[in-house]
Amino acid sequence: MSERVHLTLDEVRRTAFDALRAQGCARAQAKAITETITAAERDGCPAHGLFRIPFYVNAIKSGAVATDAAPTLSELAPGILRIDAHFGFAPLALEMGSEPLAERARANGIAALGIVNAFNIAALWPEVERLAAGGLVAFAYTGALSYVAPAGGSRPLYGTNPMAFAWPRAGRPPLVFDQASSATARGQIQIHLRDGKPLPEGWAIGPDGRPTTDPQTALEGAQLTFGGYKGAAIALMVELLAGALLGDVFSFEASARESGKTGAPCGGELMVAIDPARCTPDGDRNRQLDHAEKLFAEILEQEGARLPSDRRYEARARTLQEGITIPKSLHDTLRTYIAGE
Amino acid sequence: MSERVHLTLDEVRRTAFDALRAQGCARAQAKAITETITAAERDGCPAHGLFRIPFYVNAIKSGAVATDAAPTLSELAPGILRIDAHFGFAPLALEMGSEPLAERARANGIAALGIVNAFNIAALWPEVERLAAGGLVAFAYTGALSYVAPAGGSRPLYGTNPMAFAWPRAGRPPLVFDQASSATARGQIQIHLRDGKPLPEGWAIGPDGRPTTDPQTALEGAQLTFGGYKGAAIALMVELLAGALLGDVFSFEASARESGKTGAPCGGELMVAIDPARCTPDGDRNRQLDHAEKLFAEILEQEGARLPSDRRYEARARTLQEGITIPKSLHDTLRTYIAGE
Repeated sequence: MSERVHLTLDEVRRTAFDALRAQGCARAQAKAITETITAAERDGCPAHGLFRIPFYVNAIKSGAVATDAAPTLSELAPGILRIDAHFGFAPLALEMGSEPLAERARANGIAALGIVNAFNIAALWPEVERLAAGGLVAFAYTGALSYVAPAGGSRPLYGTNPMAFAWPRAGRPPLVFDQASSATARGQIQIHLRDGKPLPEGWAIGPDGRPTTDPQTALEGAQLTFGGYKGAAIALMVELLAGALLGDVFSFEASARESGKTGAPCGGELMVAIDPARCTPDGDRNRQLDHAEKLFAEILEQEGARLPSDRRYEARARTLQEGITIPKSLHDTLRTYIAGE
Repeated sequence: MSERVHLTLDEVRRTAFDALRAQGCARAQAKAITETITAAERDGCPAHGLFRIPFYVNAIKSGAVATDAAPTLSELAPGILRIDAHFGFAPLALEMGSEPLAERARANGIAALGIVNAFNIAALWPEVERLAAGGLVAFAYTGALSYVAPAGGSRPLYGTNPMAFAWPRAGRPPLVFDQASSATARGQIQIHLRDGKPLPEGWAIGPDGRPTTDPQTALEGAQLTFGGYKGAAIALMVELLAGALLGDVFSFEASARESGKTGAPCGGELMVAIDPARCTPDGDRNRQLDHAEKLFAEILEQEGARLPSDRRYEARARTLQEGITIPKSLHDTLRTYIAGE
């Protein structure tokens, strides 16, 4: 195993922030990104942790990102908010929209927030977890770059198009899932390429449209959705919700605009929040949450079954005590960023 | 091939209505069920067509269904409607809720409707298609009886838990999908059993928790979700939305209550509707719908790719002209129902 560097979560936070600032990211943008990166390291998701800083830096260096953009919020209807990120990164817009969305959901029972013109290379679970920690049921949908074939098709069209969902729990962190509608993350294919390993069946097709387990052929071809045509229907739904519904681009349009320069998709993200207390006549949220616990107990009673977010929360308990490690090569890169190189 | 009987869609409608009426279903309930059954035959979905009448009749004969229940609608919040079906069948409640939900979505931008205490053995696409035909984006989620194992588990817990989505199109019927979160419908396993054919891999596990391709072992064991743990996350989400959120039962509770007598799940259904015109600053719905058509054109340009609902609409064009056929054995059964036997 390659050499690794130990960091406390405070050091993660400081490293991320200093690197982003030194590379030209305005304070507010850098702070919001830093929180999502620190949350990912804290929760044992290194693929969305400090590993992402070079992606942000590349996007900044491309000149396409407005690193000092101040997102603007408007109310389009009693239940619809919109934040224009003005071609900055998504995390600041999401942070800014969270409380207004929660307030609208509590007032109307259900509300939506559309973030547009945002460069989004973070996970979705931080924003749905934040809403559910405030007692709401939350959904998020966003497009990406065009890597995934439609059902029955042979060429990239959809993004990896994640959707996230969170359910509040009394006295514990929310139940959360955040999953790509592709069979796997693009990074996983790149890791298989690096390690010279064949891909599992069902991940990808080659440029000829035929199934492949060769990582290079897969990267030149198209990824597949999870679960065949049903996953493809989810991917299509995400395109429509994050694209046409919000007046923003589809993944294939984000790719055409991006032209390989930034490496980051810029587009829309739809969030929906529901207040459970407004969904039953007695408005007794505790009864609803207690009821959900019965389902969770039934799941956990089955040997081998887990709740979607349990692994993240186990990591969280551990890393708050122990900190995390990152490859020395990544640490070195981050240090050059901080030095302004 | 067994003998078949030809029916026009008018004859389908009359047969369904007369059978339900003769078996004790009140006029309004029978009329609403008849519409969903006729729509299914019209759209080439016989599994939700006249084939379902015996399911309704069994449920009626069990005495569990309030066949003359009049659903009641209440507003719980500006964006949340609730219809108590009072243990009648779902279609009447769904029909009754459609226009009020659309009105709330137009007023607030987004709204939800929770149907509770409804026996639901129909497809979900008729209700999302109806909303999208009125220009709205629509979602529906409902639980079922407990047949599907959670991720990593080995025993039935979730229902087949369908979700449906519809997107409006200018000058044509909406794009719609309606899919179970199980890998397959339970009826498909029963058909394989009847025909003595092995199941495809990935559909089911036996009572020992191990994968099986034997239909009988599968029926004694548990069905699997589509797409592994990701489909299971969708199934779990549907349980929470149709169950705890609405103050109604989970699939495993519906099964416990049902005790095999009715064969029909009774529980909740969540619908969400969004008005696209309230989601962009200019409120120009045509621009959003035109934009979506670009995505659909990209999909259809790929050989082998189709839009989710195209097959239904092709069948619709055909059956309006040609009518449909059903097995003579089913036709005979329906005639005995109509004769009041």
